[in-house]
Amino acid sequence: MKYDNVLLAHGGGGLLTGQLIAEKFLPLFSNPYLEKMEDGAVFNIGDQKFCFTTDSYVVNPIFFPGGDIGALAVNGTVNDLAMCGGRPLFLSAGFILEEGFPMAHLETIIASMSEAAKKAGVAIVTGDTKVVPRGAADGIFINTAGVGVINYIGNVSVKAIEPGDVVILNGTMGDHGVTILNQRQALSFDMNITSDTAPLGGLVEVILDASAHIHAMRDATRGGLGAVIAEMAVQSQTIIEIDEARIPVHDEVRGFCEVLGIDPLFLANEGKMVVFCSEADALAVLAAMKSHEYGKDAAIIGTVKERDRGRFVLKTIIGGLREIDLPSGELVPRIC
Amino acid sequence: MKYDNVLLAHGGGGLLTGQLIAEKFLPLFSNPYLEKMEDGAVFNIGDQKFCFTTDSYVVNPIFFPGGDIGALAVNGTVNDLAMCGGRPLFLSAGFILEEGFPMAHLETIIASMSEAAKKAGVAIVTGDTKVVPRGAADGIFINTAGVGVINYIGNVSVKAIEPGDVVILNGTMGDHGVTILNQRQALSFDMNITSDTAPLGGLVEVILDASAHIHAMRDATRGGLGAVIAEMAVQSQTIIEIDEARIPVHDEVRGFCEVLGIDPLFLANEGKMVVFCSEADALAVLAAMKSHEYGKDAAIIGTVKERDRGRFVLKTIIGGLREIDLPSGELVPRIC
Repeated sequence: MKYDNVLLAHGGGGLLTGQLIAEKFLPLFSNPYLEKMEDGAVFNIGDQKFCFTTDSYVVNPIFFPGGDIGALAVNGTVNDLAMCGGRPLFLSAGFILEEGFPMAHLETIIASMSEAAKKAGVAIVTGDTKVVPRGAADGIFINTAGVGVINYIGNVSVKAIEPGDVVILNGTMGDHGVTILNQRQALSFDMNITSDTAPLGGLVEVILDASAHIHAMRDATRGGLGAVIAEMAVQSQTIIEIDEARIPVHDEVRGFCEVLGIDPLFLANEGKMVVFCSEADALAVLAAMKSHEYGKDAAIIGTVKERDRGRFVLKTIIGGLREIDLPSGELVPRIC
Repeated sequence: MKYDNVLLAHGGGGLLTGQLIAEKFLPLFSNPYLEKMEDGAVFNIGDQKFCFTTDSYVVNPIFFPGGDIGALAVNGTVNDLAMCGGRPLFLSAGFILEEGFPMAHLETIIASMSEAAKKAGVAIVTGDTKVVPRGAADGIFINTAGVGVINYIGNVSVKAIEPGDVVILNGTMGDHGVTILNQRQALSFDMNITSDTAPLGGLVEVILDASAHIHAMRDATRGGLGAVIAEMAVQSQTIIEIDEARIPVHDEVRGFCEVLGIDPLFLANEGKMVVFCSEADALAVLAAMKSHEYGKDAAIIGTVKERDRGRFVLKTIIGGLREIDLPSGELVPRIC
């Protein structure tokens, strides 16, 4: 289908985002780095392998239980570097502020970014600030880009996924999505759930140390686990089968989702990732993940079946097999 | 003075932008890379020196004579890398789109970015697209970050400026600012002036080849030549004397400025830079610049006098000496 105007779903991380990239960006920005469609670009300069990535953050509200737009902006980009198998080193920060934005909010956000950067072991080394007149933006938008080095022996890429690989998830699904949704509009369920925003660089180091056969990693942000697995199935040209009963979900998140009629599978996370590794190393990787602060609820949730045009098959809790398509949009606009 | 809310001038590249950075960002993002306050961060990984920079583009209107927001977003970041003495290699692109933004406009902008990237010799290797609901942004904002390598023998830094250095400018002032201003509101003078947006990487290579004593370079964007020289005087702790009569300005730009009562010294440029080099090499650098497409109107415009707390002294056309302070804001919001 052809769209004359940009829809919210074009930014949702689902089907329309994929189409926008494949049809508009790739043909013109054509180069082998971008075409890999990973969380970041990987390139060599001299003998050293680098990764480089960017994300803009437009989350609404900007402050929420468990974090704020600043922490998200640091952790999100740190995590995209980590997903390339890289060690995050340096970040840039670009601020677009609306005239009249409270200086106290900006100070809180800067402090939060500073704390998140320290925790993630990265330095924010360059930046930019633009201010637009009242009404031309909604408060604050932050872009971060990041540079990291890759020293891992293997090639971490969705293209390296093989039949037989095991899929491991590092923890509960939907916490960030539910937290943001609950802040919106008239919703305000009394919950103990907070955003899971966290830097995953340390967890990734532990994972890479545990196995020389880590094939792919990706964080389950916009579009949730559902979008990520559906996308990776197509990119790896395999059937990925996930066992719904094994996906960790907090009871409160499950309850919230039942009331609203939404599926935690498609809710955004900001500190959760999937790892694809060889079957032989799966238990070692799982054990390593469980030893880490951000992996203690890790679980093996599925396996990669045969080569295919790319399908995500969910073994549902009630026992059936359901094919999951890339969601057509994000459940919650401005989730990150 | 303390501000409770963000003002337009905080994004103008002048005094308030400097205060915002010095008082809010630097204390919390504290690290030696950021504290240098150059156009980009410079760091070593192994034996290789790198530069890394970012800018967000919020220009209004998004299409204008001589360019558009896409060309600006590529050239601006390429130029910041070049100003570090670097060879620009890789760019990221982060788009924030307003729901309903015309897809045809997006296509034009992507094509323009692609063309600008080819011309500048860089690849756009990673990206991100966010869409916000109608009214939450004004059409399109683009962030680019860039990575380059530095192979120059010298240390290109505002701190390397020395008394006796010669200041060379590569061409006419104010073309971009006048072009954007003329598109705004009721203004529409009949002019042949177009934005000077251009990638300066090639010109910088020629400059660096011409002399081993290039001390500093900076592009004169937001706040114009006035803001750049005033800032560099303070950062280098010298007196910089500029001869107003030697600053190239198109007649039409001068006429436009006289009618509106503004000074081309403070108008933004998107393809203009100043070079600080040793007196002995100044003529060689000038000749090299004049041989290049983007330096054919190059001129020696001033010299660095003694060490000082940092002052920009303008020798005016009528013969007096006028001290120029960092402008308190940008003449034109959303100029880039």
